[in-house]
Amino acid sequence: MKTYFPKVDRIAYEGPDSRNPMAFRHYNPDEEVMGKPMREHLRFAVCFWHTFKGLGADPFGPGSMIREWLQPDDPMDAARETMHAAFEFFTKLGVEFWCFHDRDIAPEAGGDLAETNRRLDEIVDLAEQLQNDRGMKLLWGTTNAFSNRRFMAGASTNPSPEVFAWAGAQVKKAMELTHRLGGEGYVFWGGREGYETLLNTDLKRETDHLARFLHMAVDYKKKLGFKGPLYIEPKPKEPTKHQYDFDAQSVHGFLVKNGLDREFLLNIEANHATLAMHDFQHELEYAAANGMLGSVDANIGDLLLGWDTDQFPTSIYDATRAMYTILRSGGFTTGGLNFDAHVRRQSIDPEDLFYGHVAGMDTFARALKAAANMIADGVFADFVKQRYAGWDGEFGRRIENGELGFEELEAHVLEHGEPELQSGRQEMLEHRFNDYV
Amino acid sequence: MKTYFPKVDRIAYEGPDSRNPMAFRHYNPDEEVMGKPMREHLRFAVCFWHTFKGLGADPFGPGSMIREWLQPDDPMDAARETMHAAFEFFTKLGVEFWCFHDRDIAPEAGGDLAETNRRLDEIVDLAEQLQNDRGMKLLWGTTNAFSNRRFMAGASTNPSPEVFAWAGAQVKKAMELTHRLGGEGYVFWGGREGYETLLNTDLKRETDHLARFLHMAVDYKKKLGFKGPLYIEPKPKEPTKHQYDFDAQSVHGFLVKNGLDREFLLNIEANHATLAMHDFQHELEYAAANGMLGSVDANIGDLLLGWDTDQFPTSIYDATRAMYTILRSGGFTTGGLNFDAHVRRQSIDPEDLFYGHVAGMDTFARALKAAANMIADGVFADFVKQRYAGWDGEFGRRIENGELGFEELEAHVLEHGEPELQSGRQEMLEHRFNDYV
Amino acid sequence: MKTYFPKVDRIAYEGPDSRNPMAFRHYNPDEEVMGKPMREHLRFAVCFWHTFKGLGADPFGPGSMIREWLQPDDPMDAARETMHAAFEFFTKLGVEFWCFHDRDIAPEAGGDLAETNRRLDEIVDLAEQLQNDRGMKLLWGTTNAFSNRRFMAGASTNPSPEVFAWAGAQVKKAMELTHRLGGEGYVFWGGREGYETLLNTDLKRETDHLARFLHMAVDYKKKLGFKGPLYIEPKPKEPTKHQYDFDAQSVHGFLVKNGLDREFLLNIEANHATLAMHDFQHELEYAAANGMLGSVDANIGDLLLGWDTDQFPTSIYDATRAMYTILRSGGFTTGGLNFDAHVRRQSIDPEDLFYGHVAGMDTFARALKAAANMIADGVFADFVKQRYAGWDGEFGRRIENGELGFEELEAHVLEHGEPELQSGRQEMLEHRFNDYV
Amino acid sequence: MKTYFPKVDRIAYEGPDSRNPMAFRHYNPDEEVMGKPMREHLRFAVCFWHTFKGLGADPFGPGSMIREWLQPDDPMDAARETMHAAFEFFTKLGVEFWCFHDRDIAPEAGGDLAETNRRLDEIVDLAEQLQNDRGMKLLWGTTNAFSNRRFMAGASTNPSPEVFAWAGAQVKKAMELTHRLGGEGYVFWGGREGYETLLNTDLKRETDHLARFLHMAVDYKKKLGFKGPLYIEPKPKEPTKHQYDFDAQSVHGFLVKNGLDREFLLNIEANHATLAMHDFQHELEYAAANGMLGSVDANIGDLLLGWDTDQFPTSIYDATRAMYTILRSGGFTTGGLNFDAHVRRQSIDPEDLFYGHVAGMDTFARALKAAANMIADGVFADFVKQRYAGWDGEFGRRIENGELGFEELEAHVLEHGEPELQSGRQEMLEHRFNDYV
Repeated sequence: MKTYFPKVDRIAYEGPDSRNPMAFRHYNPDEEVMGKPMREHLRFAVCFWHTFKGLGADPFGPGSMIREWLQPDDPMDAARETMHAAFEFFTKLGVEFWCFHDRDIAPEAGGDLAETNRRLDEIVDLAEQLQNDRGMKLLWGTTNAFSNRRFMAGASTNPSPEVFAWAGAQVKKAMELTHRLGGEGYVFWGGREGYETLLNTDLKRETDHLARFLHMAVDYKKKLGFKGPLYIEPKPKEPTKHQYDFDAQSVHGFLVKNGLDREFLLNIEANHATLAMHDFQHELEYAAANGMLGSVDANIGDLLLGWDTDQFPTSIYDATRAMYTILRSGGFTTGGLNFDAHVRRQSIDPEDLFYGHVAGMDTFARALKAAANMIADGVFADFVKQRYAGWDGEFGRRIENGELGFEELEAHVLEHGEPELQSGRQEMLEHRFNDYV
Repeated sequence: MKTYFPKVDRIAYEGPDSRNPMAFRHYNPDEEVMGKPMREHLRFAVCFWHTFKGLGADPFGPGSMIREWLQPDDPMDAARETMHAAFEFFTKLGVEFWCFHDRDIAPEAGGDLAETNRRLDEIVDLAEQLQNDRGMKLLWGTTNAFSNRRFMAGASTNPSPEVFAWAGAQVKKAMELTHRLGGEGYVFWGGREGYETLLNTDLKRETDHLARFLHMAVDYKKKLGFKGPLYIEPKPKEPTKHQYDFDAQSVHGFLVKNGLDREFLLNIEANHATLAMHDFQHELEYAAANGMLGSVDANIGDLLLGWDTDQFPTSIYDATRAMYTILRSGGFTTGGLNFDAHVRRQSIDPEDLFYGHVAGMDTFARALKAAANMIADGVFADFVKQRYAGWDGEFGRRIENGELGFEELEAHVLEHGEPELQSGRQEMLEHRFNDYV
Repeated sequence: MKTYFPKVDRIAYEGPDSRNPMAFRHYNPDEEVMGKPMREHLRFAVCFWHTFKGLGADPFGPGSMIREWLQPDDPMDAARETMHAAFEFFTKLGVEFWCFHDRDIAPEAGGDLAETNRRLDEIVDLAEQLQNDRGMKLLWGTTNAFSNRRFMAGASTNPSPEVFAWAGAQVKKAMELTHRLGGEGYVFWGGREGYETLLNTDLKRETDHLARFLHMAVDYKKKLGFKGPLYIEPKPKEPTKHQYDFDAQSVHGFLVKNGLDREFLLNIEANHATLAMHDFQHELEYAAANGMLGSVDANIGDLLLGWDTDQFPTSIYDATRAMYTILRSGGFTTGGLNFDAHVRRQSIDPEDLFYGHVAGMDTFARALKAAANMIADGVFADFVKQRYAGWDGEFGRRIENGELGFEELEAHVLEHGEPELQSGRQEMLEHRFNDYV
Repeated sequence: MKTYFPKVDRIAYEGPDSRNPMAFRHYNPDEEVMGKPMREHLRFAVCFWHTFKGLGADPFGPGSMIREWLQPDDPMDAARETMHAAFEFFTKLGVEFWCFHDRDIAPEAGGDLAETNRRLDEIVDLAEQLQNDRGMKLLWGTTNAFSNRRFMAGASTNPSPEVFAWAGAQVKKAMELTHRLGGEGYVFWGGREGYETLLNTDLKRETDHLARFLHMAVDYKKKLGFKGPLYIEPKPKEPTKHQYDFDAQSVHGFLVKNGLDREFLLNIEANHATLAMHDFQHELEYAAANGMLGSVDANIGDLLLGWDTDQFPTSIYDATRAMYTILRSGGFTTGGLNFDAHVRRQSIDPEDLFYGHVAGMDTFARALKAAANMIADGVFADFVKQRYAGWDGEFGRRIENGELGFEELEAHVLEHGEPELQSGRQEMLEHRFNDYV
């Protein structure tokens, strides 16, 4: 049987003192943390697009990587080889989940949707068999409705209903395939749902169409009997100047306004958070506080660069803060940590794909343990509880319950005068946080 | 009678060829545009805080300006002189509206709220008399619940209900004074409603308290019989790391979620828009599309700087795009263009206050005429209409009406195949836009 | 004879009232401004890469445009057709200059440099003939040493001397071709001269190699007898995380340090300026103040986006400020305004290429006239002169001449005390500037 | 004897398992690292301005902190108390160095320079005595020539030579005092050396004056017999729109151009680096590579905010990268780690000043040990050496020596063809770096 990663064996856990770059120092899948194996907490997924189809291209040059699985001239042959390479990779890495876009796994047949769908069916047959053989699961599926030129002005927010129809047809099929592969969720990332210039845009009509489209998706999900959640993944800009799904709060508000907030959860991506000028943890915390936290695209951006760099997550800080929020919100159910990350243009060897994933998995494994320790020690939770203690008293409780109005507040102030102030202790807390890193 | 601007007479309209820097070249208050005098379209307001209390201080030095009206040792004497100077300025500039925070106009008496309120009453007596004498109106009032150290951790989102009470007492009084002065609206700008670090913050509890506070404001407004709108002014950051009222869409979603969207409108500030990484026009367009456009803080930021520079608006581009959206949305009713702008630290002469306002008013006057021409010519509206024409056809209409689902869309695509694509024509439209500048 | 733009005739000047989008409203080539025809001031050039080879691709999708001239299967046939299309475009647009990279005009033959160079010679034969036929000139030539995967880690700053050698060989040939085509200059844009992470980088060695490479270029230029200037085009980031040619001042300092500042001038790009967090005019002003202003890449970025958008310049503000600096520095000699800009992904029609260029040319034509008026009126120059008048007095002159030291300054202060301060008048000046827009 | 920090004892090292927030977990001053005690490596300094004079003010409110040492009505009494409080703090914290601006330590007497200088002398007498009593040293002194309104348009780059003279007189005195206190260096931070708008600015004349001023400083240093280095501290913006000392490379180039590079070193501030869109380590690496690394202002900014937040450094990542560069460049000689940081507005207790410094010191202590381990293991240095190995071979060496030109390079390529490419291994290296954090 053909192997695409002959230099790599199954990645093993060797402990923190190992210096073997092809081993885990921290991710020990069956080690229990807070009463559950690490792998059940972290639910790592490999993304198909960046890992197997990405070649290091950027706006200043075509791909730098030469992948054996993409060498066949016939695109369906290449698609089959790529799927085999992917499952070899998943198995050697030791993850349980993967994610894909429809157009990643099978080549489009131009404007012939029937043939495109037939190709998809064929590749999904293969994927299904490989899933069964290797014990792999699909974290979520999604649609690429942004690369083809027909979507240059958006998919569901396109000025043309003809293109809206294409988007709908495509999501329909991708939802069916996701369902068939036992996918635990389905993601909507906005792609080109946004605008380039208001001079040619009807913002209201476009966003109304977006809501309509999401309602159709909910309807079809029910018809299909798909039980997993639908996720929306916010992003503020890129490729368009303004993306309608700007950030967690924008998307949440949009869903509430359109009666959709019970039908969707959020898929939070770290790099999209920072492009929206938010900390990754902020987006997670907003989602958790509003019952909208679904899944995570685990990567990291470079805050000094203004585009989506989708790097492998190697910051213990960011990952620990993220896991702290995720654990406190109850942890993942259907969601997980999908590595929406790609190796750098200069990381041209197939082995670099392993180095990137091992780095990300070890980072989140350390973060999981650090966050669990933070929760066990209770230092931060206790500090917060004490800081807001006034709200648990009589006066605070009555405000929260809606028993008081401005007149009562004024009377209270006239009686009690200036309140005592307490330090926010940010420096002490940041230092304390370092004890966990 | 004492004069504070002895070198300046009433600013007159002298037409575009004038080179007198103390004259309007474009703002001709009674000139009709689209059937209404310019002043009724633009509803210019001068803000009290920057114009009369701002002295050019920045984080690297105290104020550079020496204002005659602030020289008295007794703070109430200074407050009275400042009010007189303000009305001299309003009259000479020829605006009809002003805006203020409670703490701008009268000095706080430490923790003695009763005395603070007494001082406010006294100064408001003077303001009321001056309004009547000069035919001035109050565009809106507001509260400064962010400068005093008691609000260092927020007002309605403070960890202490005692501080929440202070904020409530203060808004109550400021609403009463606004009502008494015939204010046409009342503004909530978030001040320090946000957080510095999630390590010490309960985001959910804080935002729930914010909603509670806004409900109290609605209740008290009704009790008071105040008929004007309540506005929320979004800002994404500064002074806090994260401000809860991030941008127009965030605030709108928050209001919808909390059943408050019928009770509030938005006050959009240009510089806050760009700090949120949005074009000014985007924020206006979002607000207009959602029926939330109330009033405008007319200033401009420097997009290469990362803080709120609050410069006087002198970009014909930005102002024209703004007026185009405002006019298409029906124009201002209770709202207007408040100059939330201050002269630069080096613009130390009292005359510079006039130069700044004249610049801003001429800029928006040109913008008003340009936007009216754009509407009259219909070039952009026609282009947009044609671009979305498919949605006015049978197929588009049925999608919009909710008659079709994914299955019908798929059938449509299988039948019709690849749609024809049309150019977005951005370069042509941008060039065309220059014809109006 | 084949035509690639059948719907477009020679673009004519029709005056400011024209509403024909395929006509100039402001660019009237032979109209005199400050004693010289507009075309001699502006020296517009069309860039080959974006205009004829760019297809609207971005990181989220391949090209959206289908160009007739790129349809031939044989890459040399396509190269020939593209050159013909280019000259048809130049002629119809009415520009006198063009610019190219070596790899734009002829396809590379893999690792066979001899064959690659042969192809270049063949295409340059055609270009030379077309230049002669149409009366076109080459503003400058340059090398693409960044798209091919061999340059993934830089060209002259590559960790491998083998790649350095490829860069040298490629520049050698491109300089020869530029010389042969009568190019008026030769540009070095850094491409991937920079780094992704300091973890794998020897910054000192790389920048020393860059200096070495530039010395080689100077030597070869002399040997070749090429008389035009060598330009360096600064850019701070993208594609690499840090580009060594960060901005005008960085590059100038680097050249001075390495004894190269007499051998190079700067080619300032508007969008690169803003990526470096500078106004376009700042970069020009820095270059002019240091005798380093050579040529300009005329485009514009979106300051709310963090990547090089290379849009056609349509801001009268930015263009006027640029022309004001350029005119005051004496205007272009060998340099000019090269449109390093591309139409948006949705501007898919060949006509959009004309719309973009017409927009840019009209914008700079308006800017030229505005800047000439600013100079003629002398308002700003007079203000500046008066503001610094102290330096033209005895005391200022002696400081400038190096006659005084800290002791004399201290004595002066002890004698004269506090100086009088004058307003910087920024608001008045910005308003006054609007009179010219 | 009066104490200002009664709740705090001498901060002791208690080891990594301590949970006492008033103890060091990592900074153990006499512990040897690479053959030298930690304190000699790190040379921590406390800055006078933020720590003792900063009260948490920001553009939206005056100070929130109430410091006992600033309560006296007479400013000279307050100055004396503040100096006592400072030395109590230094001693309890266990640092050896401090830093100050002239205007921090003694109040200015308006325009009476003689009296201002007399006050300075008096306070410096006290400081000298306290230094001797406590065994403290001065890392460096500097001048505040930016807060007083006379410097609103810059100090040495002011449009008026009268203000230039004030700056000179002030630096003269500050250099004398620094010398008298045994200061190991003297810093120039640009303050308002920059511009707000080019409309009123003569950039060339201003930067020429800056060079003149620096020459005067060199002359006076020699006259005074001061042996320590002069440092320039780059910053790109804030308070001005454009600061002339933009970043390390800009300043270096400016110094070279003006024949000053042998007379100055750089004082690199972390937060200024990121405001210039550079990593902190980049600025250090640039300085080190060019022999310009002098001292460090150790703080950290928030990359999602656009202003100088000057937070206490708590990122092990940034600190480790910084120490790695500092150690490889030979470590500090006259320079050190000055905490140019201030506690947040909500950190109102005097104890928070200790928490902030302890956090920063522990962070750099961890970083020192991590960087020393990185150097001992040699992983990164070996990787870099191997990556550039080609340059140590015959062909590379000849290029570096200037023996080859473009013709030889071309011949080499024609003979050898396509080079082999090697992976940049960024992901593996980032993962490896995490082993040291």
